[in-house]
Amino acid sequence: MKVSLNKKILARNEEFADVNRSFFADNNIMCINVISSPGSGKTTFLSRTIRDIGSELVIGVVEGDIKTDTDAEKIRATGAEAVQIETNGACHISARQLSEALGAIASADKDIIFVENVGNLVCPSDFDLGENKRVVLLSVPEGDDKPIKYPGTFAKADVVIINKMDLIDYIEFDLDRVIKDIRRVNQDAEIFQVTATDGEGMGQWYDWLKAV
Amino acid sequence: MKVSLNKKILARNEEFADVNRSFFADNNIMCINVISSPGSGKTTFLSRTIRDIGSELVIGVVEGDIKTDTDAEKIRATGAEAVQIETNGACHISARQLSEALGAIASADKDIIFVENVGNLVCPSDFDLGENKRVVLLSVPEGDDKPIKYPGTFAKADVVIINKMDLIDYIEFDLDRVIKDIRRVNQDAEIFQVTATDGEGMGQWYDWLKAV
Repeated sequence: MKVSLNKKILARNEEFADVNRSFFADNNIMCINVISSPGSGKTTFLSRTIRDIGSELVIGVVEGDIKTDTDAEKIRATGAEAVQIETNGACHISARQLSEALGAIASADKDIIFVENVGNLVCPSDFDLGENKRVVLLSVPEGDDKPIKYPGTFAKADVVIINKMDLIDYIEFDLDRVIKDIRRVNQDAEIFQVTATDGEGMGQWYDWLKAV
Repeated sequence: MKVSLNKKILARNEEFADVNRSFFADNNIMCINVISSPGSGKTTFLSRTIRDIGSELVIGVVEGDIKTDTDAEKIRATGAEAVQIETNGACHISARQLSEALGAIASADKDIIFVENVGNLVCPSDFDLGENKRVVLLSVPEGDDKPIKYPGTFAKADVVIINKMDLIDYIEFDLDRVIKDIRRVNQDAEIFQVTATDGEGMGQWYDWLKAV
């Protein structure tokens, strides 16, 4: 019973994802779905990205949160256009919600649209938004067992960002193990080690972003 | 449509929650549902608790994860009985899954059964497991905006544990703000500040656990 319901919801989501996909293709937009646990540093990572390369690329952000629009405000402080989706309890953004949010900013003018999904390492993974690329963040304090515990999410990433590398000296975190465990489910993802708060290591990510 | 489906799933969950509730009452068991983001330190917190007070109270643990049984193994290393639920993609434990797991250990002999839910600050909050008390962990590196971004989860907590307090000097984290934001949705929860890795601050939590 539950499976068939989920299938229906996912099939309906896929219709809207296709609409979004066409919109991105028609307007030459790179849409990037950013997924992580709560508190991995998605907003800080995106704010830093916009501040550093926002003069070269026109960037817009769609923020997803259960409640509050504080993340959209933080993004707007960088000068970029941002729109907030409040999911009111839902654990992920749906393709339909993204579709509506795209109408609230001058989406067609953007080179890149980041979608900062609801902080959740499980649910967003199952919902195609029609994005071109998917980025998964993992922060050092979350621990080195996350790739084996949430393999489905890491399997679908085009880029894995290991964030808060500045904390690695204060925490037991086996970086080699993390990379090995990511590789077990995903041979192709780029893996970048960064500290978004001070910008350390962000250069590789910018190179990837400009080349993609 | 989606709302009515959710209602059906929740109503069905509630039937099993009632069964669990009766089982706990009949056997004088205190069942505690432990909820947090991935990597807040739930397993370390429970392992420390069992090592410190496991000689006074008979404790069992039900572990929930998308994949792997490494957390149950960590708990067993403390000497406590533990059983793993692998949800295979589901973002929370259901009351039915808990009901089945209770049959896999000598549940009736326990004073306390901890249920370590799937690492997720959203979904587990909506699913009553029939537990007596609910504990929500928030770790310092996740950031001080979590209570306002996930108010529903914090509103339903009997205890909020602020974990990884040893990292507070390395991270921007406004503790007063966190406590104020928790109080905005929850006037009654106990709030304990701890570092589960070294045991700092755990005494208050043990006092609460013994008194409850």
